[in-house]
Amino acid sequence: MCELLGMSANVPTDIRFSFAGLARRGGETGPHADGWGISFYDGRTCRSFHEPEPSARSQLARLLRDMPIKSRIVVAHVRKANRGRVSLENTHPFSRELWGRRWTFAHNGQLKGVKRLPLGGFMPIGSTDSEHAFCWMLGRLQARFRALPRPETLDRAVADLAGELHALGVFNMLLTDSRTLYAHCGKRLCYLTRRAPFGKATLIDEDWQVDFAEETTEHDVVTVIATQALTRDECWTDLARGDVLTLRDGAIRLLRPANLA
Amino acid sequence: MCELLGMSANVPTDIRFSFAGLARRGGETGPHADGWGISFYDGRTCRSFHEPEPSARSQLARLLRDMPIKSRIVVAHVRKANRGRVSLENTHPFSRELWGRRWTFAHNGQLKGVKRLPLGGFMPIGSTDSEHAFCWMLGRLQARFRALPRPETLDRAVADLAGELHALGVFNMLLTDSRTLYAHCGKRLCYLTRRAPFGKATLIDEDWQVDFAEETTEHDVVTVIATQALTRDECWTDLARGDVLTLRDGAIRLLRPANLA
Repeated sequence: MCELLGMSANVPTDIRFSFAGLARRGGETGPHADGWGISFYDGRTCRSFHEPEPSARSQLARLLRDMPIKSRIVVAHVRKANRGRVSLENTHPFSRELWGRRWTFAHNGQLKGVKRLPLGGFMPIGSTDSEHAFCWMLGRLQARFRALPRPETLDRAVADLAGELHALGVFNMLLTDSRTLYAHCGKRLCYLTRRAPFGKATLIDEDWQVDFAEETTEHDVVTVIATQALTRDECWTDLARGDVLTLRDGAIRLLRPANLA
Repeated sequence: MCELLGMSANVPTDIRFSFAGLARRGGETGPHADGWGISFYDGRTCRSFHEPEPSARSQLARLLRDMPIKSRIVVAHVRKANRGRVSLENTHPFSRELWGRRWTFAHNGQLKGVKRLPLGGFMPIGSTDSEHAFCWMLGRLQARFRALPRPETLDRAVADLAGELHALGVFNMLLTDSRTLYAHCGKRLCYLTRRAPFGKATLIDEDWQVDFAEETTEHDVVTVIATQALTRDECWTDLARGDVLTLRDGAIRLLRPANLA
């Protein structure tokens, strides 16, 4: 399996604290030592960093701890390979351009038979189930809409596609079109929203505490979503299987499977 | 204008020496301070680093000097903005997936009326002429071939498309499909091939000398291509306007416009 980390915020926000916790799980406090990646959005594109090596021992991941890249949407992943060899081609997050925006996708879980799903205009570069699922989703969206739909219309379409993949196995997913961060809970995902009044938080995976009151303004809204809680003194909310969360500017909207019927 | 740097080699090769020279031109020894990027191929994809800031003063660019990323194909760019504001979206190299491979493109020059060229399945994310030209090229290739053609067939098609863009202005370009590195000289590009017996080289832009005999084996073949020579004690060959160079495993093949008639 793997672990995911996503962030959505209403102001450009520094993710280093959360990423430090995740990165330790890439070969130190967790077994996800087969690669890592992180994408920081800036407008309709993102800067991405990928390595097919353990994040816990990565010089580049260490540099990212020293270099604040403020962003409103972040997607990160540490990998424990199951399908697909350890290689750069198989390292999440994956990205593609659609409708003049860079889309980014990261997944943990397994999807039985996903490679039988027919592809449209997007082809996998590597050999993971995950990238196939991503290409299938984008191909379906491209076939259905001629241009980028309104966010609410896209929410529905993404939730429908995620539901189809959910039926194939475990589909914990983060996806963004540069406007909205989508999360689908196949088995395990949790989130928290930080807003005023801000407090302190301490990482589970290392001895690092931040007082967010010193780092933020009273208008900041920041939602962090992860496979497992990253801090030990905050209240993380678990998602249920099949839940889809849409995050825009840090604000969340929960689509439960029942709502989608 | 901007400056380009490309490399093709028959073994994974460390580009730090050449990149150090280019990076200084991004705001120190040269005026190209509006962003920089570099893509290192590994299989059918690449790891890329982009910043809409001067490379000469970049913490990330400095890290890349300390971190050997060996690669057989590299594309790098330092930007002096003319069309398109200074932003991550407008920072070269640009990349897209086509036929299950990541393609990468960097350009310097100006192309009059390029935005009137109709696009196919690829849309620009930013607002540069360059990215429009790249999307147009990929759309034309996708329309013409159902799958990745043989390298020699693709060479011809890329040269034809480059020739069409050459007619619109200045089109100094690097493009790769992960197998071949293509270079088109619109006005100014030069290259050199390093092979046994290897000698010493000294950067023009800083006081750094390398003895390649100590860094290589006798079978290594490495071709470097750049807007302007990067070393002062090696013999760089200028390309002529309209020349297309194909580079595979460090080996070059020159297609002059006359050959293309």
